[in-house]
Amino acid sequence: MSSCDELARIESEDPRISVLTVGDEILSGEITDSNFPVIAQALSQIGQKVAEHRTVEDDMELIARAIRSLASFSAAVIITGGLGPTSDDVTAAAVAKALHRDLVLHHETARRIESFFKRLNREMSEENLKQAFVPKGSTVIEPAGGTAPGFIVEHQDRIITALPGVPSEMKQMLFSHVIPYLEERFAKATIQKTRILRTFGSGESDVASMLRQIEAESRARFGYLATAGEILVKITASGDSEEEIEAILERESEKVKDRLGILVYGEGDDSMEAVLGRLLSEKGKTIAVAESCTGGMVASRITNIPGSSNYFIGGVVAYGIEAKRNLLKISDGILSKGLVSEEVAREMAKSARELFSADIGIGITGLAGPDSGGEKKQVGTVCIAISRHEGCESFEVLLPGNRMMVRNIATLAAMNIVRVYLLEIN
Amino acid sequence: MSSCDELARIESEDPRISVLTVGDEILSGEITDSNFPVIAQALSQIGQKVAEHRTVEDDMELIARAIRSLASFSAAVIITGGLGPTSDDVTAAAVAKALHRDLVLHHETARRIESFFKRLNREMSEENLKQAFVPKGSTVIEPAGGTAPGFIVEHQDRIITALPGVPSEMKQMLFSHVIPYLEERFAKATIQKTRILRTFGSGESDVASMLRQIEAESRARFGYLATAGEILVKITASGDSEEEIEAILERESEKVKDRLGILVYGEGDDSMEAVLGRLLSEKGKTIAVAESCTGGMVASRITNIPGSSNYFIGGVVAYGIEAKRNLLKISDGILSKGLVSEEVAREMAKSARELFSADIGIGITGLAGPDSGGEKKQVGTVCIAISRHEGCESFEVLLPGNRMMVRNIATLAAMNIVRVYLLEIN
Repeated sequence: MSSCDELARIESEDPRISVLTVGDEILSGEITDSNFPVIAQALSQIGQKVAEHRTVEDDMELIARAIRSLASFSAAVIITGGLGPTSDDVTAAAVAKALHRDLVLHHETARRIESFFKRLNREMSEENLKQAFVPKGSTVIEPAGGTAPGFIVEHQDRIITALPGVPSEMKQMLFSHVIPYLEERFAKATIQKTRILRTFGSGESDVASMLRQIEAESRARFGYLATAGEILVKITASGDSEEEIEAILERESEKVKDRLGILVYGEGDDSMEAVLGRLLSEKGKTIAVAESCTGGMVASRITNIPGSSNYFIGGVVAYGIEAKRNLLKISDGILSKGLVSEEVAREMAKSARELFSADIGIGITGLAGPDSGGEKKQVGTVCIAISRHEGCESFEVLLPGNRMMVRNIATLAAMNIVRVYLLEIN
Repeated sequence: MSSCDELARIESEDPRISVLTVGDEILSGEITDSNFPVIAQALSQIGQKVAEHRTVEDDMELIARAIRSLASFSAAVIITGGLGPTSDDVTAAAVAKALHRDLVLHHETARRIESFFKRLNREMSEENLKQAFVPKGSTVIEPAGGTAPGFIVEHQDRIITALPGVPSEMKQMLFSHVIPYLEERFAKATIQKTRILRTFGSGESDVASMLRQIEAESRARFGYLATAGEILVKITASGDSEEEIEAILERESEKVKDRLGILVYGEGDDSMEAVLGRLLSEKGKTIAVAESCTGGMVASRITNIPGSSNYFIGGVVAYGIEAKRNLLKISDGILSKGLVSEEVAREMAKSARELFSADIGIGITGLAGPDSGGEKKQVGTVCIAISRHEGCESFEVLLPGNRMMVRNIATLAAMNIVRVYLLEIN
């Protein structure tokens, strides 16, 4: 172990907490580490954030080295995995090695394991008893369901805690023991919260530059995240009390909403279809769709929402020209000019509205690619129309990305048009 | 930067590859890192394994420190995230800093970004041009969908590569550039490969017990993975040559296919809709759907496939009773007995076939939940029917899980019925 791994004073004044995942199956990508997000979210609830997350294989030397490295800048290290009964479970030994302590038998745990096997009428192997050994000076956390105990050990002002890798056991011990322990030790003066505003209709850099002035004047931190077609604005504030932070977040998100206007469609976990569903219910409007390039995606997104049968009447997927002609009654005169046009989208929207006797009809036709299928327009061209008693409106956009992305953005755009319309009416 | 971060000789003879994830939103647990498993699995396909995985926040100092630390024992470091256009995207600068290199403008990328914005008729901000700066000496990987390029840079025998955090862009660049690059540099003696067989229609433990005998006699390792409604059988073999491994995998997958029969619908990345699309094309059949509880999911899955317009004519989403009555012409006598029945599904399938003049019509009606909406059947009940010139067949199933899962499994089941039918005809 090199000298730079020696435990030194912690640089930051804030307690910093690191997470170490142990497990070949996670490092190989066979299994996704579902424990880490649970731990990170639990820490953020007590105003702590993760300084670093590492994943190493089931190797005593590597685990011990990672523990010492993380402890060099962290006030606490939370380890998951490697506490089972088999030979590749070496986390307890690695913690002992990292802290230069002995492994000692925890008698109560040994007795519990013995009676566990007795109760199930199963033979106990010597390996199972291995789970009763913990680094000297540990506080043992009793097994949650399985036979593996967890433990918390303090060393040179650092807290090292090890939990099983089985998600249900990990979660139970985390919330029953580790989080309360850390919360008490690191009673925080400052806590931190993030609010997410969801936007649609503009690119990441445009949204960021629209908010540059607000960001510059703000006590909160701003972050941007581009997902399929949407840009999320993340506002993070810290302060001494929940109330103070909520006040900052409320003030900043109001400023952002004022600036971005109609671009902001929701907050937090809101989805476009959930927001649209709430608006349709509020305004007492029903909707029907006629889709070509999105092939049913708009209908399936809208009907993701429980209770959508109250406002979604139905849809037609008019993929081929025959369906557009026969079911949607679009004239050959219009179709002969090309299947991707605002005119076709408008006819589709009107047909959808009439066929299903809905208040609002949506029509979508476009070229999702990879090739243009004989149409004159560019791949990525999508025409969307909305029909309602005030008349029919349409527009044409050129969307970036591959087939999946074009279809996704077109689906969001179609729902977004209805959202914007509903916001404008009384 | 402390002295222990200096790049030294690599301890192990095997090339070791580390992965560094950059992103506040991942470290905070808000978003699960879906990129890491993809990278780890891709590396295992070329016989490499991950030495360590770290996640750090969007902070130039911390990223640079992590790069130097990982490079101290790794022959390659794969970085994801932090290549966007906003102020919190600092990965390129961090790589430059870690390697003591300048950031230089990559003219071709700058031109590409300019024309990207021109084509979409959008204003390009200065921030967007930031994405064209890469560490000096880098090989630039062109953007995959977005505007962010990736890059590969070699430094003191280490390979450092940076890819965007957007999963679709990351994946495309990984497989088109990074994996081939690493494969050529680190040609390995023992290699390992995994073949995946995809099954639908039976549970994980049933599939596993059907294969127990084959597994016991095999030189390959077997694994099982339950995803939304499907069970994947993973067969892994290792050996000295590609040919040897392929021979084992071929032999074992034939045995599995013989044993599981019709349950196996595809291999590797095959999706049900891709397999169905190939079969429809082969047999020269067209299809149309009438959906209720799946709300357009069957149509949208089928039309995920490029060229699906050759066999998919169209669909109706008959969500409300009016659409079932008016558009699908189902009699009130049938509807009055309840909207979820095999009889209704059969009428829907027949109507879909007739409305769109298709060879095959599919009808689906069911209760996705959360409540039963006044129907007598249990939540999770789904009725599916297939209509073709031989007549109409239907069945009723009770599916587990929440609304999303019921809809997903029902969608797969509907496509699977058509697959099985097409396999039976000449």
